[in-house]
Amino acid sequence: MTDKVQTAVMGVTGYAGAELARLLLRHPRLKGAPPVFAGRVDEKDAARGGVPLAEIHPQLADNAGNGDLRLEPFSWELLEARGVQLLFLATPHEQSREWAPEALARGIRVIDLSGAWRLTDEANRAVYAFDDDGTELAAATQAQAVYGMPELHRAQIASARLVANPGCYATSIILALRPLVAAGLLDLAHGIVADAKSGVSGAGKAPTAKTHYMYAADNLSAYGAFTHRHTGELLEQVGLRNSEIVFTPHLLPIPRGILSTIYVRFRAPQSRASVAQVYRQFFAGSPMVRLHDKALPQIQHSVRTCYADIGFQLAPDGQRAVIVSCLDNLLKGASGQAVQNLNVMHGWPEAEGLE
Amino acid sequence: MTDKVQTAVMGVTGYAGAELARLLLRHPRLKGAPPVFAGRVDEKDAARGGVPLAEIHPQLADNAGNGDLRLEPFSWELLEARGVQLLFLATPHEQSREWAPEALARGIRVIDLSGAWRLTDEANRAVYAFDDDGTELAAATQAQAVYGMPELHRAQIASARLVANPGCYATSIILALRPLVAAGLLDLAHGIVADAKSGVSGAGKAPTAKTHYMYAADNLSAYGAFTHRHTGELLEQVGLRNSEIVFTPHLLPIPRGILSTIYVRFRAPQSRASVAQVYRQFFAGSPMVRLHDKALPQIQHSVRTCYADIGFQLAPDGQRAVIVSCLDNLLKGASGQAVQNLNVMHGWPEAEGLE
Amino acid sequence: MTDKVQTAVMGVTGYAGAELARLLLRHPRLKGAPPVFAGRVDEKDAARGGVPLAEIHPQLADNAGNGDLRLEPFSWELLEARGVQLLFLATPHEQSREWAPEALARGIRVIDLSGAWRLTDEANRAVYAFDDDGTELAAATQAQAVYGMPELHRAQIASARLVANPGCYATSIILALRPLVAAGLLDLAHGIVADAKSGVSGAGKAPTAKTHYMYAADNLSAYGAFTHRHTGELLEQVGLRNSEIVFTPHLLPIPRGILSTIYVRFRAPQSRASVAQVYRQFFAGSPMVRLHDKALPQIQHSVRTCYADIGFQLAPDGQRAVIVSCLDNLLKGASGQAVQNLNVMHGWPEAEGLE
Amino acid sequence: MTDKVQTAVMGVTGYAGAELARLLLRHPRLKGAPPVFAGRVDEKDAARGGVPLAEIHPQLADNAGNGDLRLEPFSWELLEARGVQLLFLATPHEQSREWAPEALARGIRVIDLSGAWRLTDEANRAVYAFDDDGTELAAATQAQAVYGMPELHRAQIASARLVANPGCYATSIILALRPLVAAGLLDLAHGIVADAKSGVSGAGKAPTAKTHYMYAADNLSAYGAFTHRHTGELLEQVGLRNSEIVFTPHLLPIPRGILSTIYVRFRAPQSRASVAQVYRQFFAGSPMVRLHDKALPQIQHSVRTCYADIGFQLAPDGQRAVIVSCLDNLLKGASGQAVQNLNVMHGWPEAEGLE
Repeated sequence: MTDKVQTAVMGVTGYAGAELARLLLRHPRLKGAPPVFAGRVDEKDAARGGVPLAEIHPQLADNAGNGDLRLEPFSWELLEARGVQLLFLATPHEQSREWAPEALARGIRVIDLSGAWRLTDEANRAVYAFDDDGTELAAATQAQAVYGMPELHRAQIASARLVANPGCYATSIILALRPLVAAGLLDLAHGIVADAKSGVSGAGKAPTAKTHYMYAADNLSAYGAFTHRHTGELLEQVGLRNSEIVFTPHLLPIPRGILSTIYVRFRAPQSRASVAQVYRQFFAGSPMVRLHDKALPQIQHSVRTCYADIGFQLAPDGQRAVIVSCLDNLLKGASGQAVQNLNVMHGWPEAEGLE
Repeated sequence: MTDKVQTAVMGVTGYAGAELARLLLRHPRLKGAPPVFAGRVDEKDAARGGVPLAEIHPQLADNAGNGDLRLEPFSWELLEARGVQLLFLATPHEQSREWAPEALARGIRVIDLSGAWRLTDEANRAVYAFDDDGTELAAATQAQAVYGMPELHRAQIASARLVANPGCYATSIILALRPLVAAGLLDLAHGIVADAKSGVSGAGKAPTAKTHYMYAADNLSAYGAFTHRHTGELLEQVGLRNSEIVFTPHLLPIPRGILSTIYVRFRAPQSRASVAQVYRQFFAGSPMVRLHDKALPQIQHSVRTCYADIGFQLAPDGQRAVIVSCLDNLLKGASGQAVQNLNVMHGWPEAEGLE
Repeated sequence: MTDKVQTAVMGVTGYAGAELARLLLRHPRLKGAPPVFAGRVDEKDAARGGVPLAEIHPQLADNAGNGDLRLEPFSWELLEARGVQLLFLATPHEQSREWAPEALARGIRVIDLSGAWRLTDEANRAVYAFDDDGTELAAATQAQAVYGMPELHRAQIASARLVANPGCYATSIILALRPLVAAGLLDLAHGIVADAKSGVSGAGKAPTAKTHYMYAADNLSAYGAFTHRHTGELLEQVGLRNSEIVFTPHLLPIPRGILSTIYVRFRAPQSRASVAQVYRQFFAGSPMVRLHDKALPQIQHSVRTCYADIGFQLAPDGQRAVIVSCLDNLLKGASGQAVQNLNVMHGWPEAEGLE
Repeated sequence: MTDKVQTAVMGVTGYAGAELARLLLRHPRLKGAPPVFAGRVDEKDAARGGVPLAEIHPQLADNAGNGDLRLEPFSWELLEARGVQLLFLATPHEQSREWAPEALARGIRVIDLSGAWRLTDEANRAVYAFDDDGTELAAATQAQAVYGMPELHRAQIASARLVANPGCYATSIILALRPLVAAGLLDLAHGIVADAKSGVSGAGKAPTAKTHYMYAADNLSAYGAFTHRHTGELLEQVGLRNSEIVFTPHLLPIPRGILSTIYVRFRAPQSRASVAQVYRQFFAGSPMVRLHDKALPQIQHSVRTCYADIGFQLAPDGQRAVIVSCLDNLLKGASGQAVQNLNVMHGWPEAEGLE
């Protein structure tokens, strides 16, 4: 169990970065050791020691000293000078491909929130078209990466040097399906449908036609059917073949939150109790999953929490079920899970700073 | 072809009623013959000749005379005195069960927007628990009812005395599925999934915990999995058995609009062209359906129009497809379709007053 | 009274342009004479005769022929070849400064929806920093411009060659204030406050940090206090000095609609009836203004209508009043008013095609 | 300085109650001493020891033990048995009128979140029409009440037995105005305008026509001009006469947050620095107010924080200013301020548990 850890965050300007900063600044184990925030800073801002965090994210301002925190110009020397031991990359995947190996080489552990290191199967990675795929360094780095979902890979995460923090959609679907597949309950030949809906923060901070208020508000749109990047994570982590699942994401007119409605067929009729028991056993010891016995979870229950919320409804014939899985895409779907991984990596209580 | 038709509307105070009033007041064939608006009116309002429509729905007010229209106290004598030939019932199904037979007995044709007369199979009707189910009058009335979807039953609607206007969810799903089932394309044994999402107006005007802004806003919730009332319409109109479809509605944080994402598997691999051709043939001569070739339709495309918008995406294997079907729940999902039925019943162009 | 008018629209791709297209396509006097839509079109699209309108604005698609309409590559020759008599400019003001004089020179009347020609006072125009201000051509063009608010300048608009269509905020505030100022009711020394709130479409279609869904949703922000461009219109059209009014716009988390809350003080105590009478007299013969006697208007009443809605509440002392003025920023605040001007310019009923 | 305090909450089922529960459960000084939650509970729920808090507010559920907390049937005996020392009343004002005196009589200090005890002037109280106004008990209770805004009454709150927690609108306006009035800067004869906008949670949890999603969404409405209940608080706390301020609240289509835009005129021209200095001095030592120097605050900055955010813009003439004041109506406008008062009453750091 580690006692004092110096962290750094790259990518604090984005939505996930802001949540990560918030969680780390109030984390009980990091009292007095705020993260180093590093990134691209123009000359004028560099001259004043970086951009005050309160200018980037006014809601992070307080009257108690956080106001002094700044986004500083990134350099490896800066991280070294500050004694950074763990680096969070909340950056585009192209940058994570470059920076993660470098950090590892310098003895810094990495939690990468991008899609850069999540996929072990080359075919699944193809959708990202990484420039460096196939190089020795990339292969060696990938070999060290652990998929950062503590509910599935707690032990490996504890000792990992590189944690590939899962995708937001992927988290909501994998947590709902893995327990049932692991227990051998599902008739996979019949195919699984995962109909997922996400708030607009999932589309990132860049102003685009699709993040324009007039596009997103009072609307709902499906996109990426049969082609979304998170599909590979579902296949690898749930253990499915491509033909066994259809995953369609939708853009919801809300700021944040994901709700996935998942349709499965059982190999043999199930009772409510038998399915509930499978989930309960799988998630025993997993403090960041809440099972809903009485009613299906809703996005409102999960938003601004670090939990994944899972509930289900059985067909009268016991052959089919609808599973509803909710989470906050910026928390359990990104920064909350990253801090959960931080906890696991240091032997701290897994839910510390997340409740 | 009829030339002059006197209509009446019961239930103008609701959301569908308001849209119905708007459509009828601007309908080219009803110029100079505004509907009679009838309903429950308290004594004070009755004394002033009813409640001005502009007080009930301020957005219907104009400076051109509509201001004189009123919601008058309902009586059969009133309808008779005004020579009403066609009655729209935008009322709860309990009231439609009572009023439709009475209207028919008085020689008034009926377009009923409730669920009262949509289902021919007693088992499917059970969910409504109609008090009078099993009576001779109910059976005789049901026997006259035609399911009011012109794309499926144009000829019967033309001569129908009682048109049972379809449910909003049901319309969006039936239009997407019926062409494929009719063409024998689908592998029904694999099961169809219909994941549908609706704006809040679908939940009605009564203030309830679920229509409270704080419940609906920034939220998404699934409800009625395996139990929703519209399921019977899907089974009867598409031609499916209960085990062949799962239908889950969701409450969207938007005022109006439905998007249904529908997952099917084909008996044999299809091409984009072959599926498109099936839809095009089925909807030839159906002006209120728009087929989307290039991109999937979105709720924004359909809202405040009387169209149903249908598009689809094929899996690379050609075995599976995701179909997206959008409409405005108050228009093609209710009042727009009711006026479409009005047109068909009188031999007018089907899209008249709807574009 | 003109019978047949060939119109053209530049700037159909924007929000106001889409509404303008919708209004013109269904305008009874323009049946069979759809506008020419012209603008910047890339070579590939030019080769196919322009971009189908249904691709730009899917909600404008129908099954009745509008699908053939296209955005064509702009040239003065095109307008000439089509016999364009009236040109709507729904373009940025820089372009309107250039195109309006050219159109006038070619004998084409112009309705300009930008801020290019609204202001007669050079000091008020300063905020726009027009490149050509001070040139002879600009001065001559400005001299021909009539401020396009029929409720104030009906007669001049009828014969105008260049109509400067008012700003959206300005319309809502001028209509509320001008009647009271004209009647000499207000104590201007005490100062007027106009606190205005607008939906996001008012900020235009370009994706920016401020039109990002995550910025606008669940938010309210004030901007442009003491500096907003529409201030000059208030001063010139209401007849005020700068020190007599404070105008603060706010960005509302809704797609469209403006509500202005306006605070005035009377020279002498007024009764509800006396104020109502002033408004009624001023707007007699103005079909696009609705006066609200019973309750204050709300944005919902005005949105998707071409009306301005005005109501007020008197303080118990009769000395002060709060006036609430609502409209749809894309309709009475832009395209609806433009079509109202079209009607006035041709001697057609002022509300034609607007109800 | 007190060390251990047993609190109780009545009214936990409402929106402010939920936030109060959340704040108290994570308050560092109340670790291991969760509040007693008491209220009306039906027999069946009483039999199981009350209603689990996680059923009432699913977002309060965690996997760490809060699940055991329950809403128990209220009785004074229960509070006594638990040794309750401080009672939060998040109840309608009628109930606070009854319960506050009883609690005081039993030696329990009270923080009342309703409007029951905020107003010392009988004329200002008239709008509430309290049944017991004029009784000796009511007068004696009122005499003990301290208006619970620490920024104005810190010392009296510290020793108060009954704290009347301010209204949400009132808080946002008083904090913006009091410093300027206290410094003698304002020309009150010219009148102040306070144009305030609040999210829907301010209208309470009861489903009504006005809290229906379809009424509130995509809308903005003004209400209560010249008549809103919070007016009395403005007059008493800022020190104004009725004729010196107009206050108009509006209902915003967002769940939570208040933004007040306040228009003032100075007795003599001011500079930005002079006004900023007045605010800075007034709020020195007030950790829950954030002054914005660079840009005006927005609702997004304040929501889900316990801060009030204040900024202003000066007219070029230095005579007038627009002040923007934001807060979360459920936090600094209700429960956050209540906990701030709790801190002051016990000599704890004022911001404890609020950042």
